[in-house]
Amino acid sequence: MQLFTWDRKCLNQSINSLKSCLCVGLDTDEEKIPVSFPRGAHLSFRFNKAMVDATSDVAIAYKINSAFYEVRGPEGWESMAETIAYIKSKNRFIILDAKRGDIGNTGEMYAKTCFEVLNADAATVSPYMGKDSVAPFLAYADRWTVLLALTSNPGGQDFQLKKLESGNYLFEEVILKSKQWADADHLMYVVGATKMEYIQKIRSLVPNHFLLIPGVGAQGGDLELILDLALTGQGDILVNVSRSILYASSGADFLEAARAEAIRLKDIMAQHIVKKMN
Amino acid sequence: MQLFTWDRKCLNQSINSLKSCLCVGLDTDEEKIPVSFPRGAHLSFRFNKAMVDATSDVAIAYKINSAFYEVRGPEGWESMAETIAYIKSKNRFIILDAKRGDIGNTGEMYAKTCFEVLNADAATVSPYMGKDSVAPFLAYADRWTVLLALTSNPGGQDFQLKKLESGNYLFEEVILKSKQWADADHLMYVVGATKMEYIQKIRSLVPNHFLLIPGVGAQGGDLELILDLALTGQGDILVNVSRSILYASSGADFLEAARAEAIRLKDIMAQHIVKKMN
Repeated sequence: MQLFTWDRKCLNQSINSLKSCLCVGLDTDEEKIPVSFPRGAHLSFRFNKAMVDATSDVAIAYKINSAFYEVRGPEGWESMAETIAYIKSKNRFIILDAKRGDIGNTGEMYAKTCFEVLNADAATVSPYMGKDSVAPFLAYADRWTVLLALTSNPGGQDFQLKKLESGNYLFEEVILKSKQWADADHLMYVVGATKMEYIQKIRSLVPNHFLLIPGVGAQGGDLELILDLALTGQGDILVNVSRSILYASSGADFLEAARAEAIRLKDIMAQHIVKKMN
Repeated sequence: MQLFTWDRKCLNQSINSLKSCLCVGLDTDEEKIPVSFPRGAHLSFRFNKAMVDATSDVAIAYKINSAFYEVRGPEGWESMAETIAYIKSKNRFIILDAKRGDIGNTGEMYAKTCFEVLNADAATVSPYMGKDSVAPFLAYADRWTVLLALTSNPGGQDFQLKKLESGNYLFEEVILKSKQWADADHLMYVVGATKMEYIQKIRSLVPNHFLLIPGVGAQGGDLELILDLALTGQGDILVNVSRSILYASSGADFLEAARAEAIRLKDIMAQHIVKKMN
């Protein structure tokens, strides 16, 4: 097993060599796992393993949605840890999507859980509590903090799209302030696929930062538009797709269907990557 | 065991009859548990149980800080569940301080984890993602959502104290908008003990909502000032104290010291409660 630090350059090399910026979101809901898949212990992990095996040649990253594992208590927690260890053995980038954030020693505990106990490469963090709630994550020199900026959901407009006295939207203030806290090898931003009308503004603020873009597929984000607008000459995006891959079929062919959907998305990505990246 | 819904009236009756608005924060760090306490399995839970036994006649609520349990993996998760069940047997109000928040089915999983799997009475939620990230918690008619408004940490000023075009601070906008989402029996707000200069403004916005006030003790908040300014004629506050109770002594007398500190705080509270509440 090769172990290396996923700095920006390395992540972009991975995108360029695989011609993919696909992040598969492991929002694994045991009740949605096709009935053909054998039930029993470690179900979430076994399903995830099959899904990783079916997609890891076309995906460069996996996003573990913590909520789906926590809801299963200690066993879910074990499935999450096993899944991360398995993805690690495949040398893929692992984002723990837990949207944590708290201060002082509490923040340190959350960061330790994400980066030491679970050993993810990146963790999503909410900015509401400010710098000292993000700092414990940024303190890990070989990991990434993925800060919520502009999310894909309708509620994203309640506060993120409020205009400040300065004339900036709140999400712009989040980006402007936080980009002073860490460099583009340690900090990336969540920008929803449904919010591409703001992408030029965002790219003018952070031309060289990675963006994690969820909301393609079930939420209606347009992949071609994202690749046109957000992909840079270096790469710098991860596009997360969850349900449309995981539950591509409810039949016995669900792994083939998942793989086919991942390949379809990857082929669209490859066209843009070849065109834009050198 | 008596089971009842903790609506606002019931919580306030509890405050009035115990003459206490003390919430003990179970930020249980196994490395800080006094050496005199026997080590072994379920350490966090056993320590919490002892702490609850030492304080439950003067505390009306307990706040479980999720980070401290998650960091211990599945066993920590079990300790959290055992602690909640034990507090429940004592008829005390239980806040799960997990600062969750996400959309759609993910949000539903987090709410289910807090309110069904772990069975807490209340859960802290971050407002950054807006209404549809809070709604899954508010959907539980017999539980509370505790929304971050103005937090006690220095970073609280990075975004929460940004002025919007409307002239309101962001935290005011969070309160103004969210109070339309649920009534004062289901929604309370986190307001840091170090931010009492804003309390009159907050009370003018939500005169009848509960405030959860952390930051007394280690973080320097002034209990007398809080009781003067935030306690209403009905009650409507929970004051959280963690470290100064939990780690009141590192000696063999740590339970007596914890109890003495809880009683000292409760006695201050009682004076104000008697004065203000009928």
